[in-house]
Amino acid sequence: MTDRPCLYIVLAAGEGTRMRSAIPKVMHPVAGVPMLGHVLDSISDTTAGTTGDRAVAVVVGPGMDAVSPFLSKRVPEASVHLQSERLGTAHAVLAARDAMTADRDTLVLFGDTPLVTPETLERMRAALVAGADIVVLGFEAADPTGYGRLITEGYTVTAIREEREASDEEKSITFCNAGVMAFSRGLLPDLLDAIGNDNAKGEYYLTDAIAIARSRGLTTAAVTCAEAEVQGVNTRAQLAAAEAAMQARLRAAALDGGSTMVAPETVFLSRDTRIGQDVLIEPNVVFGPGSSVGDGATVRAFSHIEGASIAAGATVGPYARLRPGSVIGAGARVGNFVEVKAATVEDGAKVNHLTYIGDARVGAGANIGAGTITCNYDGFSKHHTDIGAGAFIGSNTALVAPVTIGDGAYVATGSVITKDVGPDALAFGRARQIEKEGGASRIAARAKLAARKPDSNKSEG
Amino acid sequence: MTDRPCLYIVLAAGEGTRMRSAIPKVMHPVAGVPMLGHVLDSISDTTAGTTGDRAVAVVVGPGMDAVSPFLSKRVPEASVHLQSERLGTAHAVLAARDAMTADRDTLVLFGDTPLVTPETLERMRAALVAGADIVVLGFEAADPTGYGRLITEGYTVTAIREEREASDEEKSITFCNAGVMAFSRGLLPDLLDAIGNDNAKGEYYLTDAIAIARSRGLTTAAVTCAEAEVQGVNTRAQLAAAEAAMQARLRAAALDGGSTMVAPETVFLSRDTRIGQDVLIEPNVVFGPGSSVGDGATVRAFSHIEGASIAAGATVGPYARLRPGSVIGAGARVGNFVEVKAATVEDGAKVNHLTYIGDARVGAGANIGAGTITCNYDGFSKHHTDIGAGAFIGSNTALVAPVTIGDGAYVATGSVITKDVGPDALAFGRARQIEKEGGASRIAARAKLAARKPDSNKSEG
Amino acid sequence: MTDRPCLYIVLAAGEGTRMRSAIPKVMHPVAGVPMLGHVLDSISDTTAGTTGDRAVAVVVGPGMDAVSPFLSKRVPEASVHLQSERLGTAHAVLAARDAMTADRDTLVLFGDTPLVTPETLERMRAALVAGADIVVLGFEAADPTGYGRLITEGYTVTAIREEREASDEEKSITFCNAGVMAFSRGLLPDLLDAIGNDNAKGEYYLTDAIAIARSRGLTTAAVTCAEAEVQGVNTRAQLAAAEAAMQARLRAAALDGGSTMVAPETVFLSRDTRIGQDVLIEPNVVFGPGSSVGDGATVRAFSHIEGASIAAGATVGPYARLRPGSVIGAGARVGNFVEVKAATVEDGAKVNHLTYIGDARVGAGANIGAGTITCNYDGFSKHHTDIGAGAFIGSNTALVAPVTIGDGAYVATGSVITKDVGPDALAFGRARQIEKEGGASRIAARAKLAARKPDSNKSEG
Repeated sequence: MTDRPCLYIVLAAGEGTRMRSAIPKVMHPVAGVPMLGHVLDSISDTTAGTTGDRAVAVVVGPGMDAVSPFLSKRVPEASVHLQSERLGTAHAVLAARDAMTADRDTLVLFGDTPLVTPETLERMRAALVAGADIVVLGFEAADPTGYGRLITEGYTVTAIREEREASDEEKSITFCNAGVMAFSRGLLPDLLDAIGNDNAKGEYYLTDAIAIARSRGLTTAAVTCAEAEVQGVNTRAQLAAAEAAMQARLRAAALDGGSTMVAPETVFLSRDTRIGQDVLIEPNVVFGPGSSVGDGATVRAFSHIEGASIAAGATVGPYARLRPGSVIGAGARVGNFVEVKAATVEDGAKVNHLTYIGDARVGAGANIGAGTITCNYDGFSKHHTDIGAGAFIGSNTALVAPVTIGDGAYVATGSVITKDVGPDALAFGRARQIEKEGGASRIAARAKLAARKPDSNKSEG
Repeated sequence: MTDRPCLYIVLAAGEGTRMRSAIPKVMHPVAGVPMLGHVLDSISDTTAGTTGDRAVAVVVGPGMDAVSPFLSKRVPEASVHLQSERLGTAHAVLAARDAMTADRDTLVLFGDTPLVTPETLERMRAALVAGADIVVLGFEAADPTGYGRLITEGYTVTAIREEREASDEEKSITFCNAGVMAFSRGLLPDLLDAIGNDNAKGEYYLTDAIAIARSRGLTTAAVTCAEAEVQGVNTRAQLAAAEAAMQARLRAAALDGGSTMVAPETVFLSRDTRIGQDVLIEPNVVFGPGSSVGDGATVRAFSHIEGASIAAGATVGPYARLRPGSVIGAGARVGNFVEVKAATVEDGAKVNHLTYIGDARVGAGANIGAGTITCNYDGFSKHHTDIGAGAFIGSNTALVAPVTIGDGAYVATGSVITKDVGPDALAFGRARQIEKEGGASRIAARAKLAARKPDSNKSEG
Repeated sequence: MTDRPCLYIVLAAGEGTRMRSAIPKVMHPVAGVPMLGHVLDSISDTTAGTTGDRAVAVVVGPGMDAVSPFLSKRVPEASVHLQSERLGTAHAVLAARDAMTADRDTLVLFGDTPLVTPETLERMRAALVAGADIVVLGFEAADPTGYGRLITEGYTVTAIREEREASDEEKSITFCNAGVMAFSRGLLPDLLDAIGNDNAKGEYYLTDAIAIARSRGLTTAAVTCAEAEVQGVNTRAQLAAAEAAMQARLRAAALDGGSTMVAPETVFLSRDTRIGQDVLIEPNVVFGPGSSVGDGATVRAFSHIEGASIAAGATVGPYARLRPGSVIGAGARVGNFVEVKAATVEDGAKVNHLTYIGDARVGAGANIGAGTITCNYDGFSKHHTDIGAGAFIGSNTALVAPVTIGDGAYVATGSVITKDVGPDALAFGRARQIEKEGGASRIAARAKLAARKPDSNKSEG
């Protein structure tokens, strides 16, 4: 939309005491991602400019050590700035002064408003390009009580009036300040220097920039977004509300893309979940980060999918748990009470019941019997299991890794397999059956004797 | 209500491009049944007439091969008619001309309105019997924008006015056209012949029949239903909304019948689910088609029930999966992480944990230990397992079918049972325990040596 | 608040025919506790007085034998009174006449309004202390249709007018009678004697006490509560609505306490569930009675927790089922498809997959492999399994109780352990692996021969 370089300053220093948490407020997750991550994603989803033209500065508070490692992983080029005292928004922005340059527009956002969209950020930048010196984001409030009101004349913002200073007439205004502001290139440092702290709390407020700008003859403008987009999160209940709003947005996008969700309100998506066309998702499915579902695949009820890719036409669940690194091939089936981790289930393979497949490959068309366990951990290290194409693993079998089962091999039910099995071989590892006639009655008689002891307990369960 | 023969024409040819699906629109499921199936069920749930008097014609479009097999299974006597071009509703109805006879009333419905009720259809037929020549179904719209308005004088419908042709006064009418129409015996073919395509799209509209009927002095009437009943489905979001409405209807009926649902909004029912009195259903239960729950039974949280019957007083779940052909006896228990398929669990038997019972009978009062697997599939064929009354199957046992365990038999823990076990017999199939003192330390020492290799990985999981 | 002794009379005799249930209405559960239990809990949660000063009398109807055992367990000091005929509320209260004494205030409540709060009861008692002779509980009704209206002058209640007797002006009153009433010490018996049954149904109504009190110059007062608090339950749909309201209340309290619920509306709590700070609860978790979760613990999706305590920093689920008596230690992990019952999983121990731990101790830091079963039931009695600290149990192992595994012992995969294993020992109990080259092909050839028989079935599942 515009190729003017832009610095995004994300204010993330808020303590969030009402969250009652040891975790920094902006690190609380929504749709599987810390709130701060959503704001950063919205920034990087803006189409304007290239990475080089887009700088990101995050302002954190004392004791927020958890933020830096997250940032350096998600947006390595972002700079982190410490606001050592909490003296208002303008003071917080000032902490990022090093990142401001004369050629960059500056956009100030909040790390605790995860629902802000790239489109809104782009519209604010476009307003700068169109000639505004300062752009304020506003919204029409259903109930404006408590919000600062945007006083406007035509497209111009003449003042931001805090509720406690508003006249009765001004209180009837429903167009409110969302807090997000944009400043034309090079303008911000001077404005920040001019902002004072002559107010009840002795703090420096970024909103004062409007009055200063007006006194200097600068042009101001407002951009409007939906109220939901700029709801801040200060309590756990508001965090849950933001989650619900984000989920509604993600579900609507998935439905628009041509997937069926029997009960969309029971499907939980991550920001990056990709759902193909004609996918059927039954009720009560949870997608953690990093998952994709191919066209025509079915995800049945009560499935839990994280970091997994499900290919076209595969069927997963009910009660399938796919953990990170699961790759489910085309037409493959992962059934109930099955856990897959760091494993590939190749095309057409079937893992239908009560099974753990971890650190493994299940070859194309293989059939894994109920109760099979790949024993990947020996108490010290993790090892790999390789099951060849078309192999048949009998039920209740333990495959002790590292171990390889050849293509087309047949492992008998109830085996413990500790050595490689060759292609087309038949492997057994189980005991012979012995029967004692009348033995059940003798056991019962012994049990009756034992039951005379006071500590016995005859209920089952 | 009336014994006049009736032909129901169900228009199912809509492409449904907004669904973004390779599946014909009317085949998208609601409450486990394709939308078309709900319309057909509502037709067959009308109390009027016998099967002989009720004819059903379904009009499909090109490339909708999936509809015919479904129809021939669900309503074998229905005729299928191809509308090869999509030239409007009247053109679609004309495709079913062969099915129209002089003695039959005709009712035209839509395959994508799954919520229409038998009662509404009966009221329309009753209006024909009461003397109307044409009956139009209408509803009071909360927001009429976009709908055709029904212009009425007393009980008479004088016109159906499309929004784009409506005067401002007519636009204020909230009584709208639902699309469903009924025609007195023999009347329809003549009317269809009179309908032209002199309009913007060059299509033939069934609603034009009203103007023609009025010009011929025929009597028209409107029947009213709730707006929700005639919501058409054109998008995945509307499909989800129809599902939600159908679920609300099914849940209300189940509550009225005297069952408790802790959280009805989390219980998903099929159209044919039957729930007895004093049944307790915990949150998050999914019923697929063909299931019933007897009086006083309990279905615990996270259960998934399809094609299963649960007898009085039985307890199922949490996390029980009953697949088609599961028959759970009175007072029996199926517990957590248990899958039952094509199997009978007889009265008072217990299958409490981590078990797969497939193609099997569990005799009355038998106790199946945790981790038991009926190995019904040998890679080639399915086989049956028969467990006698009062038998005890120790934990982690594999029963390799075909196999029979006699009444009262006792199978020791961890056995692989490949041969029949006689009544009252005791069967073992497991290895003897061997212990090596200090062996754990020696294993650890070996592992430490191995761990010096660079590819080792010490995390567990 | 006040130390005047108080008798609480809970009317629990209602038949509840609209519930269509064999269970007495007040015994239907909300949030895991019978409705009557919630009313009793609200009584005992009032801060006023000591147990000695607070008497509870419950009035039951014929055939309500299920109430007494529940009562004697939950409130042993409560007296139970039989109303043998159902002749109105005053008649029901009269059944508890024996419990009334001259020094006690009396508060009359209903066993089918589970949402009434201790605060409301305290405010009613405070109004008595402040000088009122009779206190009536009222609420502002969103739609007053069907309710008795409270006619007031200032703080005085001058009449309770049933809808059918109300003038049009009175019908416009939205302040309605909640039914709950409080009577100053010793006053009630006389008033009851004065109440007649000269009305359409020939019943005795407690609300008539107001008119009698006014005629005697006694002072009356109203206390107001939220409408939701006094919604009575007469149908299963109303029971579900009460459950929803109670859940909303419990969830809000848990969020306020500093826990995160990704989707609060999918988490089901019991009245006594205790959730610590910085607990993360994923969607779809059910807490039955008697559970607690320590600070910083995580309860993942699809978990079912009853009577279990989860210590700080532990992780449970997804798909974990903790049954009564489960004690999960600090930092311990219970993973997917794992059931724990009457067992302690000590600090840092891991039980990650497909396991049943019943009647057992898992020592600190022990690692239990996938598919492990503690075989606690031998068909006759229950026995204990003791697993030492730091022990390693290989996958698919059966531990046949009673059995002890020593500290640091190592049990090989696929073992059946029937004898104690010493500390640091290595134990095996499994067969040796045998391989037959080309055996898989020979099995396939045999299967093909067998498949020529008509009853074979080649689908898997």
